[in-house]
Formats: sequence, C-alpha cells, structure tokens
Amino acid sequence: MNALNIAETMNAMGAQARQASAAMARSPAAVRSRALKRLAALLRENAQALGADNARDIERATRAGLAAPLVDRLRLTPKVIDTVAEGCEQLAAMPDIIGEIVGMRQQPSGIRVGQMRVPIGVFGMIFESRPNVTIEAASLSIKSGNACILRGGSEAIESNKALAALVRRALDDAGLPPDAVQLVPTTDREAVGQLIAMPQFVDVIIPRGGKGLIERISRDAKVPVIKHLDGNCHTYVDDPCDLDMAVRVTDNAKTQKYSPCNASEGLLVARAVAPQFLPRIGAVFAAKDVEMRCDAESGALMRGVPGARVVDATEQDWFEEYLAPIISIKVVAGLDEAIAHINHYGSHHTDAILTRDHLHAQRFLREVDSASVMVNASTRFADGFEYGLGAEIGISTDKFHARGPVGIEGLTSLKWVVLGEGEIRKG
Amino acid sequence: MNALNIAETMNAMGAQARQASAAMARSPAAVRSRALKRLAALLRENAQALGADNARDIERATRAGLAAPLVDRLRLTPKVIDTVAEGCEQLAAMPDIIGEIVGMRQQPSGIRVGQMRVPIGVFGMIFESRPNVTIEAASLSIKSGNACILRGGSEAIESNKALAALVRRALDDAGLPPDAVQLVPTTDREAVGQLIAMPQFVDVIIPRGGKGLIERISRDAKVPVIKHLDGNCHTYVDDPCDLDMAVRVTDNAKTQKYSPCNASEGLLVARAVAPQFLPRIGAVFAAKDVEMRCDAESGALMRGVPGARVVDATEQDWFEEYLAPIISIKVVAGLDEAIAHINHYGSHHTDAILTRDHLHAQRFLREVDSASVMVNASTRFADGFEYGLGAEIGISTDKFHARGPVGIEGLTSLKWVVLGEGEIRKG
Repeated sequence: MNALNIAETMNAMGAQARQASAAMARSPAAVRSRALKRLAALLRENAQALGADNARDIERATRAGLAAPLVDRLRLTPKVIDTVAEGCEQLAAMPDIIGEIVGMRQQPSGIRVGQMRVPIGVFGMIFESRPNVTIEAASLSIKSGNACILRGGSEAIESNKALAALVRRALDDAGLPPDAVQLVPTTDREAVGQLIAMPQFVDVIIPRGGKGLIERISRDAKVPVIKHLDGNCHTYVDDPCDLDMAVRVTDNAKTQKYSPCNASEGLLVARAVAPQFLPRIGAVFAAKDVEMRCDAESGALMRGVPGARVVDATEQDWFEEYLAPIISIKVVAGLDEAIAHINHYGSHHTDAILTRDHLHAQRFLREVDSASVMVNASTRFADGFEYGLGAEIGISTDKFHARGPVGIEGLTSLKWVVLGEGEIRKG
Repeated sequence: MNALNIAETMNAMGAQARQASAAMARSPAAVRSRALKRLAALLRENAQALGADNARDIERATRAGLAAPLVDRLRLTPKVIDTVAEGCEQLAAMPDIIGEIVGMRQQPSGIRVGQMRVPIGVFGMIFESRPNVTIEAASLSIKSGNACILRGGSEAIESNKALAALVRRALDDAGLPPDAVQLVPTTDREAVGQLIAMPQFVDVIIPRGGKGLIERISRDAKVPVIKHLDGNCHTYVDDPCDLDMAVRVTDNAKTQKYSPCNASEGLLVARAVAPQFLPRIGAVFAAKDVEMRCDAESGALMRGVPGARVVDATEQDWFEEYLAPIISIKVVAGLDEAIAHINHYGSHHTDAILTRDHLHAQRFLREVDSASVMVNASTRFADGFEYGLGAEIGISTDKFHARGPVGIEGLTSLKWVVLGEGEIRKG
C-alpha cells in the first residue's frame, strides 16, 4: 500500500470502529458474554487451522534468522490456544461493570447525582511478537464494551489475521458488529503513524513492547497513551524483619523469572540487618549465578560468600532495569534512605518493603510514589491476574487515568448521571 | 525576563514544586486543614490591602480600554474575598480522601490487594482574568495534597501576586512548604510554553479559558491536559412528558444564565408533543427576547408565537455554543433521533432528557456519550458545587482520567497496595 492508501484505509477503519463502538456500548452484558464464549469455542475448533497459519509465520521468522527465543514467542501451540480460550471463558463469567452506577447521592437541590461506568469508546493497541495478544486484547475490548483497532507485529501477521477472523465471526454470531475488533491488515509503519493521530476515531492508544516503541508513540500520539515504561522494581529489607521470610521473598522477587517487568532489579538493606541478611541472600544468588552489583558496604559483606559474583555498582546501576540474572544491592541507613532511593532511582512501577514494623509499613505505602507498593510480598505479584482483575491489557507507569495493572476498569470512564423530578437551578 | 531566564525560572519552580509535592503527599489531613483555615483568616484580615493591589489592576485595565464586563471580572470586592475565604473553610471541613484505601480484597495467593488514593503530584494551572481562581486552585491543591504552579492572566497580576503571598504565608504558618503553591511571576507567554513542557516536574496541566487557549495548550503540552472545551448542551423534550415541567426546566436550562458552559444551546422536541410544547416555550423565549434558530417544522410552529424572534437554522447552528440569548430548536421523530443528533452535533458536555418514560430515560443515560447525562433536570446543574464535590478545578470534556466537573478526586490517582505475610509467586 502507498501512503495515501494507508491513510484512507486507517480512516475507514477508524470510522467503522467509532460506529461499532456505539453498538458495543449499548449492548447487553449477556450478548457480550455470548460473543466471548463463542470465541473460545471457535478457537478450540480451529486449533489445527490456526497452527497451519502460525507455521507460515514461524517458517518465515526462522528463514529470516530470528533468534530462537523470539521464534518461540510466536508459537500458537494447542496449549497456548487453550489458554487464551480459557481466558475468554473466564472473562465471560466475570461480572459486567458497564452501566454500573456508583456513589448516587441526593444533593440539597433535590437532584440525585452519581457516576455510571461506560466504555472509553475506541482504543488502538500496538504490540509486537506474541500473537495471543490479539485474543487477549480483543476479549478485553468485547468485555468492556469498547471497539478496538489492533496492530500486531509483522512477524506474526498470518497468525494475527487468522485469529482476528475468528473474533469477527464470534462477534457476528453473537449479533454484535464485527468491526468492533479490527486488525490493521498491513505491516507498513505508516499505519501506526495514522492510528495514533486520529482523535476523532480513537480515544486512547495502548502500546505493548520495548521502551523505544513506547517512547516514540507517546511523543507522536495525538490522543492519550497508556504507557508501560520501565520496571526498575525494588525490594527493601527493613529493620526489624523476619530474615527467613526476607530471604524467601527476595529470592522470589529476583529469580522466579528474570524477564518480567515486575522482577526486582534493586535490593536495599537496612544497615542493622545487613550483616545477618546479606550473606544469606548472597549464597542464594551465588547458587543461581546471579551477578551482584554492590555498593562498597554490601560488596564487603558479599565478597565473603563462596561463589558470589560481586561487581562494584556504578551510579547507572541504580537506574537499571536488567531483565537478567543481575541485581543491584545497597546498604541504607533505614526507611528514610530507602524511600528516597526508590523515589529517585526507581521507575515508579512496583516496590516492596519487608518489615515487622507497622509504622514503617504505613510510611512506605504512603510515601513510595509507585503504581504498586507492597508489604511483605514479592514484587512479582504485580500483575492483573494476581490482583484479581481477570486479565490485563497492560501495566501503566503513568499516574493519569489508569495506574499499574490495567484491567477492564482501565478501559472505562465514569460519566455523571443526574436524576431529577423537574428541579431547576436557582443560584 | 529573556527566554533563557524564563526557562531557568520555570525549571527552578518546577524542581521546587516537585520537592514540595512529596511533603504535601505525606502531610496529615489535619495540617492541610489548618493551612486552609489559616488562608481563610488571612484573606479576611487582608481584604483591604488586597483591594488596594486589585485597584492597580483595575486601573491599568480601564486605562487599557478593557470592556466594562471584563474589568468587572477582575474585581476583588470584599464580597468576592469573603466567598473564596468561605470556600477554603468548606474545603477544610470536608473529609480527607488522601490515603483512603478502597477495594481491599484477599486473592487466592494470600496477598490482600486494594487501591490507595494519593495526590497526582504537581499540576500546572493556566487561567485568565478572574483573580479568585488563584485561591480556588490553591485551596484545591492544598486539600488534595498536591503542589501546583499557577499562571494567571496578565491583567490580574498584582492581585494574583498579593493572593499568592497570602497562600505562602498560610502554608508556612501550618508547617507546610510554601513552594507547594507557586505563582509564575512573569506574564511572558514563553513561561506557559515552559510550564507545559516539563514532564519531570509537572504531572498534568489544567487550562481554564477560551477554546483557543485550550486547543493551543493541548497541542503543545508534553504532559496530560485536563481539557474543558465547548459546552454545546441539549435539552430533549420526550414523548410522553409533563409539559409544565418541561417548560420550567427548558426555560431554566437556557435563560437562567447565558454565559455558563452548562446552559442549553440546543432544544430537541419529540414530534408528538411539539404542537403543545413549542408554542408555550416559544412564548417564554419571546418574553425574554431569546432568538430561536429553528428547523422548518419547529419554525412553522414558532412563527405563530407573538413577538417570537425566529430564524432558519443552518447546519452550523447545530454545532454552535452560543453563550448568548440564542437557542437552536429542532423537531425529532423521537428518542433515537434525539440521541443520534446529540452524539453527532453535541460536545459531550451535558445533555438532558425530560420524560415520563422509564425505558427512554434508561436508554438516554446509557447511550448519550456525554460527561453528564440528566433525566428531568436542568443542564445548569452540571457543576462541581451542585454535584457535591465541594469545589471544582474545572469541567473536563475528556473521557480519560476525569470527566465532567473535576473536584479533589480528579487531582488524585489510585495506586495499588499489596499486603502480604511473606507470600511468593509460584507460577
């Protein structure tokens, strides 16, 4: 497609999405649930055909020399298909929040005023690699009564097209407009530029991918963006603290998986417990071959641990999101220094305090300026499923609108509802 | 100041605001209330001195040939000062919402997850003309635990400086950082350009003023903007409807005041009730000299009304926010056409249905895509005070984050709070 055709295509998709969004917004909860259950059934019925489409993506990616772990992320195995189908069924079973009215109270004038939860309208989602995101986004969009325009990665285009066709069939079978979920048919980059600059058709953009992608989109978008930037998460081991618990939770926060954004990248330890705690966690990290980037004080303690890989931390280390078997470690005087360090170097994603002190816990919760703040729990819990949101469309590092894991609620807005009996305003 | 100095000044103010915001966020509710009560007292004690500073603005504006109604908006009379002082006292008496935790629920993993309401951080406010906005913004900022940077209009600079000095004293007397409320000391336009482009220091911009100002700021801002664009509000008289009530409410919605954004600019009438209703409201409008821009059908009915000023409506009239004694009038087939008209031509601000039909009321509430939707009430009620928010910092026509009248809640965000007992993530 040339630039003119792309602009025309995107505009047409935008207009269709806007029109479909009105039908979605007024659709009954039962109809949207029916579409989700139908989608789950279609996914299972067509697992084999989807596998064939997916194989074409895999073959192309392999031929293009894509690294094996990246090729793996493309795979739509029967197990992956079953998991996303189950996700659709779970969403279908969840309570509907569209139309819910909250806080209805009578005012002195006589009118009753409350807020009704309604869909945002149309969201655009830009993602890379994993084709199952197509279904995750589509199902959240259907559940929340929105319309969406999806732009997947070029390497998964065949899989995404096949999945999107099933979504359209499910919508149609349920009596909903198929245009409520549209996939951008071209992998041309120009399409993204158009998608993020149509405020008349698209209300919000949700990018999922690397930091570069998200920064570029935030810079150029003409509509709000739900941003998911870095996860430089911290675990702070306070004094007093149950050290057995601290070893277990710190280990989990760093090593359970290295690549997720909610893995802890920094470990802060109160000076009073450092001599007891650091050698113990150091032994765990040594056994798992985790590199430790230490300040002088923690380094001195860690260097005594057999097999420990200890490196002097630089100023840059405190800012770093490693997403790897590396952790920065620093001894702090106590709570105040820990909070100051996290607010200065952290990315406002997720930070945890491990403590027995009630006052410290309260201050940490209140004063650490992050989307998720935790007491005595692993930072790895910061995710929509673990928070009971059913599913997540992303994790927001913004403070505006949605913060942290974004579920169905993050795709809605509250409008004011006023019920009267003919009241008029006097002053 | 030259451009370099302005950039330096704004950067310094930004850094001070960011620092002050941390102290504000952790300050106890009682301390913020004390600051608000102290501010009210200082305003009253200094009413005479404020009047003198204000007189300098008035004199300059008059000399510059500013129109009398605009000069009037600048005035800080004892009555205006008393009203803003009272506003501070009311805010002080309102429940504090910072630190409130909502929705705390235990998850299958054992962790308890909820959301804590926290200040947004730093907001920048850009406003024109009326100096009392300085106190309204400052008091909402203090109550909500934020820091703010205020940029008032050049015509009120002396008054604003005097008011801002009192705010600083009140903060200081209460033991809060005076930099929590800063006034931009220059009226240079370059300062606005800087203020809206410091994402490291300012989290959100709230412009209050004409549409041109708001569009310009939204276009150039590097941070989210709480936009208040047009108020093209509608009143729809449905069938069946209590026509006495409809005349009373429609009259109020249009004529109680002409300049507010929540005055109705468009009147839609169901065909079945038009012959009874239109001549009655036409007589009211004729008596108040309201010009009626009518479609053919309503025009034919209105032309029979003695003294009625009837003009043929053009397509542009349906889009218009008159803010004047003018109203557009159209006969529609019924509910569907009314909803379609409002969603197409309206500005998604405030729209009301006057009806006796329960189903119609429900559909109007659900399907009209506006910040405020009303049944049997005057659109003039769309305001923070009437909604029980205590005060409003603006009215948002956005769907993202805050929608409609924005009170203290709109200046906060919800962060996730996770309380555990050493839980670790397994899958």
